Amino acid sequence: MSVTHPLGFEAAGVASGLKSKGGKDVALVVNRGPALAAAAVFTSNRAKANPVIWSQQAISDGLITAVVLNSGGANCYTGAAGFRVTHSTAEHAASLLGASAGDILVCSTGIIGEQLDLAKVTAGLTEAAALLDSEGGEDAAVAIMTTDTHPKQAVVARDGWSIGGMAKGAGMLAPGLATMLVVITTDADLSSDQLDTALRGATRVTFDRLDSDGAMSTNDTVVLLASAASGIAPDPAGFAEALHELCSDLAAQLQQDAEGAAHDITIEVVGAATEDEAVEVGRAVARNNLFKTAVFGNDPNWGRVLAAVGTTHAAFDPYDIDVSMNGVRVAHAGEPDQSRDLVDLTGRAVHVLIDLHAGEATASIRTNDLTHDYVHENSAYSS
Amino acid sequence: MSVTHPLGFEAAGVASGLKSKGGKDVALVVNRGPALAAAAVFTSNRAKANPVIWSQQAISDGLITAVVLNSGGANCYTGAAGFRVTHSTAEHAASLLGASAGDILVCSTGIIGEQLDLAKVTAGLTEAAALLDSEGGEDAAVAIMTTDTHPKQAVVARDGWSIGGMAKGAGMLAPGLATMLVVITTDADLSSDQLDTALRGATRVTFDRLDSDGAMSTNDTVVLLASAASGIAPDPAGFAEALHELCSDLAAQLQQDAEGAAHDITIEVVGAATEDEAVEVGRAVARNNLFKTAVFGNDPNWGRVLAAVGTTHAAFDPYDIDVSMNGVRVAHAGEPDQSRDLVDLTGRAVHVLIDLHAGEATASIRTNDLTHDYVHENSAYSS
Repeated sequence: MSVTHPLGFEAAGVASGLKSKGGKDVALVVNRGPALAAAAVFTSNRAKANPVIWSQQAISDGLITAVVLNSGGANCYTGAAGFRVTHSTAEHAASLLGASAGDILVCSTGIIGEQLDLAKVTAGLTEAAALLDSEGGEDAAVAIMTTDTHPKQAVVARDGWSIGGMAKGAGMLAPGLATMLVVITTDADLSSDQLDTALRGATRVTFDRLDSDGAMSTNDTVVLLASAASGIAPDPAGFAEALHELCSDLAAQLQQDAEGAAHDITIEVVGAATEDEAVEVGRAVARNNLFKTAVFGNDPNWGRVLAAVGTTHAAFDPYDIDVSMNGVRVAHAGEPDQSRDLVDLTGRAVHVLIDLHAGEATASIRTNDLTHDYVHENSAYSS
Repeated sequence: MSVTHPLGFEAAGVASGLKSKGGKDVALVVNRGPALAAAAVFTSNRAKANPVIWSQQAISDGLITAVVLNSGGANCYTGAAGFRVTHSTAEHAASLLGASAGDILVCSTGIIGEQLDLAKVTAGLTEAAALLDSEGGEDAAVAIMTTDTHPKQAVVARDGWSIGGMAKGAGMLAPGLATMLVVITTDADLSSDQLDTALRGATRVTFDRLDSDGAMSTNDTVVLLASAASGIAPDPAGFAEALHELCSDLAAQLQQDAEGAAHDITIEVVGAATEDEAVEVGRAVARNNLFKTAVFGNDPNWGRVLAAVGTTHAAFDPYDIDVSMNGVRVAHAGEPDQSRDLVDLTGRAVHVLIDLHAGEATASIRTNDLTHDYVHENSAYSS
């Protein structure tokens, strides 16, 4: 049920023929109110897709009636014609819903640099609008999948109100945001400013710290819609905590279904001088192809970890740095410590702990290994 | 002959048992003078191997008698014991050659975090010193190979003087410097200051712009030795031009033998506001795994190129940027231009031209594709 679990939301997902391999590819999520408060965060890639450019305007007043999402085409680097497709999509959704086009958020995902077929999108939207249902969350979650192997959904329920979410994203997973589309709904009664604060706080430490393959998307969007249909206005701290739990759940689901991945790696950096430096160190390791291939081979190659740390600007002394892998401290004070033969990397979960001994700040980055299946999925066909 | 082509140099390469798979693994290159001028550049990785820490001191007076190189172990993150191995190696070479230990440059390559067997190194050095020969360049070039499939050597001859060089490096190939060891010799008569200027100028636009896999080494060293044995003092501009030619040749050889690579990719950025921005853009594309896997699959996926460009801080307008691949302009003014079906990527050489239309600066980055063989080589065994 995901996005339709909170009261006040309906959704649908249909097949419009946008995806070359068929299947559902247009999703519609509608907020029936009474409130239409919303917040959103977008990719920081300067190459922004047309739906991102549109949606940044749509969210500026903090009101969103509905979110239209399509797989089968990113509508990025498609010029003025591509922007008209997004605009017409919003106009068509608005006319179906009796809303204003300026209150329609649009998200697209798929290949960059190819025009999206507007006729297919609008036909799909017409069908989806007729199928809108308070049980339609699952269909919507399926319709936004690209190379995902299964839909990602989550629900966090509190006393009298709840948050639901769906996400897609398997490749181009990197920060700012991790390449993905995420729609989150809640029936709590919160203002768009309160939603914005909570959403930025949650994404900063969840989706933004998922860095599967270092490739930043042009289309990333996370949107949070609040209907107030529960009639309950939770205290902001309690809402923020619940939202963080939901975002963390969805981020973990994205990591676990990343293209071709055989390991889910958490890189935990402790003892950093600042949180930013902890993130920089974690990300440098997460993006090191030699480290990532070593993990694929179940090889606890901590030298590759430290070589990656050495490329950062973070405060640390190369002679006072520790590395543990799955609980075994393999390097201490910049020298070999326990035998790497004690490290078992045969399971899917890998935990790398790096202690910089330079302060009190910490951060964790989630990533994946670099595998034959990743190379295959991204070389065998265009995406 | 490579490093022994210029007059005044002898070299040798022997098998000392450092490499688990056997083969030559200790190389010695000696400058017989009359001059002993030298210059060197080292990795900018803050995790520097013990031989790099030693050699930065050794080069500080601009005089180097000999270079000792070993494969079979990087001697990095091996602590005080590891530094003593490097120091003892230099002492032993000095005693064999009747030189000062402070004039011996040491280079190591291999796995990080494992102690190097000093007894094997010194036994190998003793044997190498006895085999020193003015035809020994080839043996030395073989002894520094790790996952290289063949030795890399080059000679540039001018009127009465010449430059010779050898290089190793197949993985951890990234800037600052591209992970590698390079020894260059010349019989020209130049001061260490002149050598330093010429070497920094040449490496900046050759080895530093080779970014095969984005992973920066802890051991990179490029050293240039000048014997003055030709008796000729070329004009510095002419020497710089010849040195650039030699470095460019060796960098191309490194690229062509990069681990698992199926394509040699040149990313040429033009129309940049500054050279630094051109380099930043080229490197962002060179490090994008989705672009690299697409090239492996012969897929001219220019959307992945532009998504990578969008992550940079370089000046450009997303609606005024062109991309050509192997001569076909696939994107113009941020929109699809000629059909991607016209692009033939089946050959080994791939040329990506990105015009930012933001200025006059240019830069080229050399990289490789991301292949199954790269994943296999870096996951199947520790290196």
